Amino acid sequence: MKYYLEHAIRLAEMVEGQTGVNPPVGAVIVKEGRIIGMGAHLKKGDKHAEIQAIDMAGAQNVAGATIYVSLEPCSHYGATPPCAAKIIETGIQKVVYAARDITLPATGHEMMAEKGIDVQYTPHPRADKLYASFFASKTTEVPIVTVKVSASLDGKQATDHQQSKWITSKAVKDDVFQLRHMHDAIITGNGTLEADDPSLTVRLPEGRHPARIVMTNSGHIDWQAAMFHDQLAPVYIYTDNESFVSPLDHVHVVYLPSTDVKTILHDLYKKGFGRILVEAGPKLTSQFLTSEFISTFILYLAPKIIGGQGKYQYFQTDGVTPLDQLANFEIVHSEMIDTDIKLQMKRM
Amino acid sequence: MKYYLEHAIRLAEMVEGQTGVNPPVGAVIVKEGRIIGMGAHLKKGDKHAEIQAIDMAGAQNVAGATIYVSLEPCSHYGATPPCAAKIIETGIQKVVYAARDITLPATGHEMMAEKGIDVQYTPHPRADKLYASFFASKTTEVPIVTVKVSASLDGKQATDHQQSKWITSKAVKDDVFQLRHMHDAIITGNGTLEADDPSLTVRLPEGRHPARIVMTNSGHIDWQAAMFHDQLAPVYIYTDNESFVSPLDHVHVVYLPSTDVKTILHDLYKKGFGRILVEAGPKLTSQFLTSEFISTFILYLAPKIIGGQGKYQYFQTDGVTPLDQLANFEIVHSEMIDTDIKLQMKRM
Repeated sequence: MKYYLEHAIRLAEMVEGQTGVNPPVGAVIVKEGRIIGMGAHLKKGDKHAEIQAIDMAGAQNVAGATIYVSLEPCSHYGATPPCAAKIIETGIQKVVYAARDITLPATGHEMMAEKGIDVQYTPHPRADKLYASFFASKTTEVPIVTVKVSASLDGKQATDHQQSKWITSKAVKDDVFQLRHMHDAIITGNGTLEADDPSLTVRLPEGRHPARIVMTNSGHIDWQAAMFHDQLAPVYIYTDNESFVSPLDHVHVVYLPSTDVKTILHDLYKKGFGRILVEAGPKLTSQFLTSEFISTFILYLAPKIIGGQGKYQYFQTDGVTPLDQLANFEIVHSEMIDTDIKLQMKRM
Repeated sequence: MKYYLEHAIRLAEMVEGQTGVNPPVGAVIVKEGRIIGMGAHLKKGDKHAEIQAIDMAGAQNVAGATIYVSLEPCSHYGATPPCAAKIIETGIQKVVYAARDITLPATGHEMMAEKGIDVQYTPHPRADKLYASFFASKTTEVPIVTVKVSASLDGKQATDHQQSKWITSKAVKDDVFQLRHMHDAIITGNGTLEADDPSLTVRLPEGRHPARIVMTNSGHIDWQAAMFHDQLAPVYIYTDNESFVSPLDHVHVVYLPSTDVKTILHDLYKKGFGRILVEAGPKLTSQFLTSEFISTFILYLAPKIIGGQGKYQYFQTDGVTPLDQLANFEIVHSEMIDTDIKLQMKRM
């Protein structure tokens, strides 16, 4: 039934954000009209969702059953043997999946069909939504990137005196914690460290702290900043200054000859960071907002007008772009968070 | 975080309808901001949700973790040892649950708290909704009862010539299959067998056929009826006719000195049927609609007017009830199903 496939997609959604550069996948095994196993891929390197579900059901019990999977079962030997082979071996009779993995030479479908399994590709809009950025990310080998900005109605992150605490409400802070929890790493700039000294952690029960990535081209860094001393999550400093060294053992310096957005993101992807959140000042924020590698733009707007000269407008460019060539976004979701509004947008 | 508790409730919802007289329960184990195990109670007699989740995580890995459960972990030895003991034994640090089991001397909370576990009862409206009828059912020892009626706008199940195929659309049929799938047994009367010869099965892929319960007070039964010969699901005949016997081995006769609604339902509950669907003609339907034991009334209304003398009005009573003493319902959900409308109601 259709809703078993939706259950599988729901399980995948539950683990979204904790699988790094691996896709979130869910699986449900049904036999004689009854769920006998459920599973999800919990972590890169861990068992795949299909195997978790087979384990819950007991491999000896799944012959003749149907497995519903959010993504086509894999056919390749990676960290784990192919799920398609396991499905064949256990005698599962029917496989229904909601998305094809366009990033792999996916022959799982054909592999199972050849063995007489009834394999059904049943596309589902929720699965498409779940995997769209993942596939794009894997194809380009850059992480899924979210840019987050808290601003006034007139587009400013702070007053001209750099006062920014607090433009948005306490409730927005909690929402940002959730957002951080869903990402593997946060990118910020040294300017933000000096201005706000943020720890960029997740102050919620069961929160997962993302790694902190600090950009500095000059090589100037405020070593007093809290995040260099809290030991709550790894810190990386990205720089194009070859002579830059860290005086702190646990702070990793990554030298890149060029620190354009694409180069940085590609390097982060190679390190296993699947989802990146950008929380930075005008310079970095603008750099990412104009790049093609941003999948979501989250803007918290406080109903305040800041004025001044707009030194901290979150979006500033050197050149002038004609109106018909501006980057456009589509608002996919909006919601009130206490007194502020949150807009979730996709790059068009 | 709150959404882990919601995940646990969601897992419970996925298995609603397949746990018989046991409650549907879901559990999620979280450690260092990451889901490390998920589980659900899949079937009466099977492992509880907490144990499934611990198994997925590996019992050796859950020390210090938090478990989110839709229902308070049990403290009693039933078909399985108490989950509270297992949680204590494995070193889980924190337990968050969304509903208290009011039907048991539930000391799971206290049992775990005494051992120093941080136990949090966090009520959630979705869990309340999930367990309300279950608790009522368990307290009264009668199953959760849904009455389903397909009727015309003028409240008739058939024309005066007993023509009823098809008042509602094909899409309603599929919806009814889903409904049957969610119930352990269907009650109907011998009149419906003679008029429609229904099989009362679930003709959907992965559908689970409910048991069929046929009521006959006279002891008259149409033995040619399809359901006596399809062997797709058990058939029981309930009668107050002591001399009634079945000529067919696989058709069970249950003699009850009184066949009032409460006596029948109590007997069904004792047999392990947790959810009963009533799909019957005017007589049985009216009997159930006036009883206090109905938790949901589902009415499919086709935009047709049938007229005639109303021989098959679905609700008929011998006596006349004053308007201010009528049974009242609350419409909790309405939706268009193709050309018809479905009303889902709770007894007030």
